[in-house]
Amino acid sequence: MAENGSQLWLRFDKAAPLTAGFNSISGDPALKAFDEFQRACRLMTSAPLPVVNQAGANGLLIATASHPAIRALKWSKELRSLGPEGYLIRTVRLKGKPITVVTANQPQGVLYGVYHLLRIMQTGQSLSDLTIREVPTYQLRILNHWDNLNGTVERGYAGHSIWKWNELPAVLSPRYEDYARANASIGINATVLNNVNATPDILTAEYIRKIKAIAAVVRPFHIKVFISINFASPRVLGNLPDADPLRPEVRRWWKQKVAEIYREIPDFGGFLVKANSEGLPGPMDYGRTHADGANMIAEALEPYKGIVMWRAFVYEPGDDRAKLAYREFIGFDGRFHDNVIIQVKNGPIDFQPREPFSPLFGAMKKTPLMPELQITQEYLGHSNHLAFLAPMWEEVLDADTYAFGEGSTVSKVTNGSFVPAPVSAIAGVANIGEDVNWTGHHFGQANWYAFGRLAWNAQLSSETIAREWLAMTFGSDKKKLTVETVPEDILSMMLGSHQTVVDYMMPLGLHHIFAWDHHYGPEPWCDIPGARPDWLPRYYHNASKEGLGFNRTASGSNAVAQYSSPLKEWFDDPATCPEKYLLWFHHLPWNYRMKSGRTLWDELCFSYDRGVQTVRDYQKIWDRNESWIDAQRFREVQSRLKIQSKDAVWWKDAILLYFQTYSQQPIPYSIERPVHELDDLKKVKLDMKHHN
Amino acid sequence: MAENGSQLWLRFDKAAPLTAGFNSISGDPALKAFDEFQRACRLMTSAPLPVVNQAGANGLLIATASHPAIRALKWSKELRSLGPEGYLIRTVRLKGKPITVVTANQPQGVLYGVYHLLRIMQTGQSLSDLTIREVPTYQLRILNHWDNLNGTVERGYAGHSIWKWNELPAVLSPRYEDYARANASIGINATVLNNVNATPDILTAEYIRKIKAIAAVVRPFHIKVFISINFASPRVLGNLPDADPLRPEVRRWWKQKVAEIYREIPDFGGFLVKANSEGLPGPMDYGRTHADGANMIAEALEPYKGIVMWRAFVYEPGDDRAKLAYREFIGFDGRFHDNVIIQVKNGPIDFQPREPFSPLFGAMKKTPLMPELQITQEYLGHSNHLAFLAPMWEEVLDADTYAFGEGSTVSKVTNGSFVPAPVSAIAGVANIGEDVNWTGHHFGQANWYAFGRLAWNAQLSSETIAREWLAMTFGSDKKKLTVETVPEDILSMMLGSHQTVVDYMMPLGLHHIFAWDHHYGPEPWCDIPGARPDWLPRYYHNASKEGLGFNRTASGSNAVAQYSSPLKEWFDDPATCPEKYLLWFHHLPWNYRMKSGRTLWDELCFSYDRGVQTVRDYQKIWDRNESWIDAQRFREVQSRLKIQSKDAVWWKDAILLYFQTYSQQPIPYSIERPVHELDDLKKVKLDMKHHN
Repeated sequence: MAENGSQLWLRFDKAAPLTAGFNSISGDPALKAFDEFQRACRLMTSAPLPVVNQAGANGLLIATASHPAIRALKWSKELRSLGPEGYLIRTVRLKGKPITVVTANQPQGVLYGVYHLLRIMQTGQSLSDLTIREVPTYQLRILNHWDNLNGTVERGYAGHSIWKWNELPAVLSPRYEDYARANASIGINATVLNNVNATPDILTAEYIRKIKAIAAVVRPFHIKVFISINFASPRVLGNLPDADPLRPEVRRWWKQKVAEIYREIPDFGGFLVKANSEGLPGPMDYGRTHADGANMIAEALEPYKGIVMWRAFVYEPGDDRAKLAYREFIGFDGRFHDNVIIQVKNGPIDFQPREPFSPLFGAMKKTPLMPELQITQEYLGHSNHLAFLAPMWEEVLDADTYAFGEGSTVSKVTNGSFVPAPVSAIAGVANIGEDVNWTGHHFGQANWYAFGRLAWNAQLSSETIAREWLAMTFGSDKKKLTVETVPEDILSMMLGSHQTVVDYMMPLGLHHIFAWDHHYGPEPWCDIPGARPDWLPRYYHNASKEGLGFNRTASGSNAVAQYSSPLKEWFDDPATCPEKYLLWFHHLPWNYRMKSGRTLWDELCFSYDRGVQTVRDYQKIWDRNESWIDAQRFREVQSRLKIQSKDAVWWKDAILLYFQTYSQQPIPYSIERPVHELDDLKKVKLDMKHHN
Repeated sequence: MAENGSQLWLRFDKAAPLTAGFNSISGDPALKAFDEFQRACRLMTSAPLPVVNQAGANGLLIATASHPAIRALKWSKELRSLGPEGYLIRTVRLKGKPITVVTANQPQGVLYGVYHLLRIMQTGQSLSDLTIREVPTYQLRILNHWDNLNGTVERGYAGHSIWKWNELPAVLSPRYEDYARANASIGINATVLNNVNATPDILTAEYIRKIKAIAAVVRPFHIKVFISINFASPRVLGNLPDADPLRPEVRRWWKQKVAEIYREIPDFGGFLVKANSEGLPGPMDYGRTHADGANMIAEALEPYKGIVMWRAFVYEPGDDRAKLAYREFIGFDGRFHDNVIIQVKNGPIDFQPREPFSPLFGAMKKTPLMPELQITQEYLGHSNHLAFLAPMWEEVLDADTYAFGEGSTVSKVTNGSFVPAPVSAIAGVANIGEDVNWTGHHFGQANWYAFGRLAWNAQLSSETIAREWLAMTFGSDKKKLTVETVPEDILSMMLGSHQTVVDYMMPLGLHHIFAWDHHYGPEPWCDIPGARPDWLPRYYHNASKEGLGFNRTASGSNAVAQYSSPLKEWFDDPATCPEKYLLWFHHLPWNYRMKSGRTLWDELCFSYDRGVQTVRDYQKIWDRNESWIDAQRFREVQSRLKIQSKDAVWWKDAILLYFQTYSQQPIPYSIERPVHELDDLKKVKLDMKHHN
């Protein structure tokens, strides 16, 4: 069959597995895991494994801990340490003959184990003497869909929503099951179906029935369904005079609504709430606090073990925007109910190409926080640019907050290691749409994959993830790929691609110099009369004849003070501030001397040019591999690389020509010259979308 | 004053002359030459030279041969050899003191001599011990304006026409005199005011009065005025039933019309005629011949020593277009009146980026031919691309036709050396418009300049011309330029620029793969149902799975047979055919081995890419020189180089992606990849203009 990307990384049919498999299967055929292995087997070899009562040599045993064959292994102590989702994959010898065992305490653990085993087969790793023990880093690994009920997707670049609300619940798209399988295969166990900019409609009985239908499809894959809610729902749907969280009728309304949902969906996950942010209603509309609002909803959910994920993406005007979430939330530390998690974007502003981590991580010591990562490339070239985001997320999750001393990384301060969390969690804003290949750019699939893998194991390296994904996603009978034999040039392209986008968009800590609203192209000059200052690029870059950057040091907004020592001191001093964050924290003269020995202006120029040249290298890398890549995907990626190549030049020219009006210095003459006129670039206008 | 390019190369005010000049001037103050020197002197030093009766030491003597001071020098024999336009510039010693003499037989010779002397001063050459003797290569050095009476310019890219017909004769634009001076300064002595696609209106009494007014302005600069005529004029204006050249009334009408013109403009030059070409009327409409038509008009002009320039740009469908002009004209060799000159475009097709010379040159042994060069860049990027054309013209003029044995170059077979010509001539299609800088692109001025200089002296090297032009056109008090100190990088950019355009447009003999009608961008795929096959690119490139190029060998159209031996044999064999003409004469397989060792396909790819990279180098060269170039011209040239840079990529991508559908071979992977999609490029449509 012609490869169009619809199979994602689950390309079991692309070739016989690289390693000889098993001769029989035993265990609990009622498990979804059992089913899924047999399904994959059929695709790999045209026949499922023979099911036997008891595994013999080279047999495969798939069962939960309660199965007699597992009990006979006497692993109960070890199994107890795995929790509900961890699993073991072990080669055991019975009468000297190898048997492969996949087991876990609960069915979902077995399912994750089976997908791990399949991944070993897909990526050509050895099946002998397996001794695998896995426990997830985060307990809740959740996608956030910014999908609207009308079928559009905010910041979605892969077509309309996969949720066909108008057909639900009567019609169930076959994609729902594919979606659930793909998520389960990488350990994602929850999903928020609708946009954080939520409408009250999602809570109507009509929509609850639709949600119930989706929940029924994804449940076998151990995926819980959540929804985003609108804080004003009691007023809008319940005919109440307001939505004040301290008003008894409001509290009652939420309890009744939650009860109604759980009657239909007993394993419903809970709510994601964007409140008092970018114009959405919230408790502060009534003089109440985020804690008042979140706790009211938490109380309603508590009897059902439902969860409230309350977003900290708030920035009332007034101070340095990078400080506002911290300022608004830090005072409520320890004042949220146990089933409230504060959902915090990875950086203090808004999913910029690169941000330092949000200072809330580690700072709230008595409140569980969950990182919100953005899989969809709102600020990274949409689905036109190839940007593998695992390195960026690795950077964030591994960033040391020093909040609990050295080694208290963002992942550790959010996964329950330091702050007790009833449920540790991590969210990723999905890049999924109804495009045949799901994500628009074929390499966008790698970001979905990487989010799942990192949510499961935050210690995985980007390289490991990229090798897995490449080996599973590409290759054919003609060219078999294993984790060892993936093309090094494509691997290296993926691993460098995020830095490359940063290089040609916003290097050295520059941020938010995007075009108004669409966040795709450059518009550092943007000036819309009456607009909020912090919605304009000038607010962030502060370019002047003297220099460039945002002074967040003690002599400026003092945002550095929100970080723990020694970070705050390091960030405060340009000599110790990492150069990748330099202009995030500092306003520096154009002639500031960089570690390279170049001036700031020259370094900027070289960075933008390096970005352009590197994308051209990516084009070469891709084209060189044409001979073995399936035709449609080759062409589609080739085509997007062309767009990226042109866009990189657009970015470079726009930013350098604009900043040059301040720096008044020539672009170093060894650098390829601009091909655009600044005045022409200022006239470029694309379609607009809303904020999130 | 801010430099905007309006002064052309006559920037006397830019700086005091680089070499100390003269202390007095004597001779004939009635001469325009005398005037012009004093005018330049005023601009250079704020004061004219003192006029004295007799030149003393370091004095300057400007006079015709008949002046007593010249007669006293006893140079009459040498002067006789100069003809009417040649001149001498000599340093003589009277009583041991140097005096500089500029003299000629006729006033125009003195004028050219004075401009030569000024050029020496402008370009910082030594004024000591001058021993200059100049005689022009061609007697008639004529611009062809393709300017329409409605003010538009066909193939003009510098704005509307400089001729304000609607204001004439009442209003005389000051530009007319500037125009005349600029032309005189480079030896141009004639001009055809209107488009070869002429309307009969130009011969009405009304327009004759307008022409007379222009003639009066340019006459002091020794420039003769010509016009293009429409062969059907007697029918249209004279109410005759037809324009049959053998009809007595038609012949009488022409005689009367010519008499009418000469009554108003006694030194009128004559007519340029495009007949039976691209739909224009001509003698063949009545079963007559080019000779019948040209001779009829020649007879009318003969009493006044007027000239007919009859164009050989004809190509009735039927055979290889490159052969048609030769086929139509060769039979009339020797059958034209003495005052008829056949005007032949430099190549057999139509001003392509590169063509071999027209086989008519040298082939018509009893008929004077004049080369028609195109200064306006119809097929060379209009006024957006920097293309210095002297190297192309040098290539044409120096091409050996072998028609009269080795050494019978195109310039020699057209300048009277071999074929007796009452008046030897060369035409250049002007690139002049009403733009402040005259030519749109500032470097377009260099082509106007180069045409004049080569028409005067076909032996001048492109480098000499470029050095002169650069030193005269750029520089300032801050940065004085001489022929020796012109920036080598800009010089080298100019000298390589034509080849660069060829590289990214039509290398290796490719031709006419331009977009339909506008002749700016690429459209090798162009297919317009019902269009003449030879107006479509496919006719010229013949791309197929097997190969590329036009087979004009003995096994093909046999166009090679129109050339003299040994050229015809050389062209016939790909091993001896110059590679720059390879695909002009040959259809060759994609894997044909080039002298570089590369295949034809790879060589094409490398050529297009070299073109792109070289334009990027030009951008660097230009930008590097910013510090000393006046701001407006710097910016305007920089801006056009950006366009050229983008266009080069457009050309490269369009041609390689299109031909790749035939070659089915990858673009060598070391080459920068395309950034466009072929399908998108096929949708590009620009405005259209008409043929010429």
